[in-house]
Amino acid sequence: MPGPARSAADRLLDVLAAFAHEHPALTLTQLARRADLPLPTAHRLVAALTEWGALERDDSGRYHIGLRLWEVAALAPRGVALREIALPFLEDLYEATHENVHLAVRDGLQVVYLERLSGRSAVGVHSRVGARWPLHATGVGLVLLAHGGSELQERYCAGELASFTPYTVTDPARLRRMLAEVRRSGCAVSDRQITDDALSVAAPVRGARGDVVAAVSVVVPVAAARTPALVPAVRLAARGISRSLGWQPAPGPAGRPEASA
Amino acid sequence: MPGPARSAADRLLDVLAAFAHEHPALTLTQLARRADLPLPTAHRLVAALTEWGALERDDSGRYHIGLRLWEVAALAPRGVALREIALPFLEDLYEATHENVHLAVRDGLQVVYLERLSGRSAVGVHSRVGARWPLHATGVGLVLLAHGGSELQERYCAGELASFTPYTVTDPARLRRMLAEVRRSGCAVSDRQITDDALSVAAPVRGARGDVVAAVSVVVPVAAARTPALVPAVRLAARGISRSLGWQPAPGPAGRPEASA
Repeated sequence: MPGPARSAADRLLDVLAAFAHEHPALTLTQLARRADLPLPTAHRLVAALTEWGALERDDSGRYHIGLRLWEVAALAPRGVALREIALPFLEDLYEATHENVHLAVRDGLQVVYLERLSGRSAVGVHSRVGARWPLHATGVGLVLLAHGGSELQERYCAGELASFTPYTVTDPARLRRMLAEVRRSGCAVSDRQITDDALSVAAPVRGARGDVVAAVSVVVPVAAARTPALVPAVRLAARGISRSLGWQPAPGPAGRPEASA
Repeated sequence: MPGPARSAADRLLDVLAAFAHEHPALTLTQLARRADLPLPTAHRLVAALTEWGALERDDSGRYHIGLRLWEVAALAPRGVALREIALPFLEDLYEATHENVHLAVRDGLQVVYLERLSGRSAVGVHSRVGARWPLHATGVGLVLLAHGGSELQERYCAGELASFTPYTVTDPARLRRMLAEVRRSGCAVSDRQITDDALSVAAPVRGARGDVVAAVSVVVPVAAARTPALVPAVRLAARGISRSLGWQPAPGPAGRPEASA
């Protein structure tokens, strides 16, 4: 990524990209090394970023992402804006289940978590706001993959399907069948694919044009899982968010939810 | 702010700063004008930002803040990290009250909202994640101003105190008395200071060193306000978050909460 041909803009963005969940606070030397920049250049860029508020310096002299960058980023329509519309419905879903509630979107071949509501008693999960996971192993990822079109599915199945537990589906043929079932049933169940004690039930969120723009899920301990009881709640929340985004359900047989892709 | 002496880094940051809640999507021409840049320069910077993922281009050709910037910004300790720790307590507070629940920090002379939980039936409020408000008119702002030190208070009271309703406190002497009462009682009540139908009850969140790092509030319709009943719930949530941040309460008389500043 870095190299002599990098523009000033690219160097500045490489400084921001040096931060990650595993190292959210960095010294100037660490920043220069991670961004592959000479120390004086790093110093100059960090000074500009700090003055603007994109970085903040703590008492120990380490830098971290600043509040102003967070404020600007809060304008991302696929981040905070979608989350704002979804939040009341996620709240209701949380109250109905008292389990982990997730909202996620797809970015390339990964799922990105926009929101996680979890009570202190909910099952421990690996999700985290801003975190990325592969599509095939999570409930939200299965929904987003199933509705992402055949080209995406072929590309995804051609790559390696990472395994997290003995239950993770790593066989492309089996994954394709699961995706067809997700489209048919209108929801996805990921059973112990990420951790061997949790299960997630997910449903698609549609935008005004009917395309799937996000997914909602509930993650529950597998021991206490009442999957059939969770499905209607998750689908209801997803449809509520879809309606708020301008989606209108296609007329279907009375009493039967439509199962269109 | 802009000028011929701007560095490449400053120009790039000016492009990001062109976005605001009132105009979250901008054409290249609008971006160039708002960032005070020649069109070719704006084009080059926008291309670099888009390739990195800091901006995304929609079907109509307009640019908005991208998911990758949102992901990086999610590492801001005063943004998402604090929010992650606070969320279970905010959830509990929401469930106990079913009203708007807020988490906010101070940045300069303003309060910045990090989180807002609100059911669909809660009173309409002007707060928004990432939004800024003056300190004297909101419950969270009163808490953060009261615990921000005398220098901040003098500076704040020397400026103009903006009025939003006939109930907004704009008299510096009265504001100082309110701040002393906030420190004494351990909570703040902002009564119809932002809108004439809502009231907020706020309490301080302390960090490991005992300093006030954030504030929690509940906003309720003034008609149905049961302020005395809300105070313990808000204080409990704020203390729960403080404990999770490493704060330990000073030993006080048994059964009486300490009211130290």
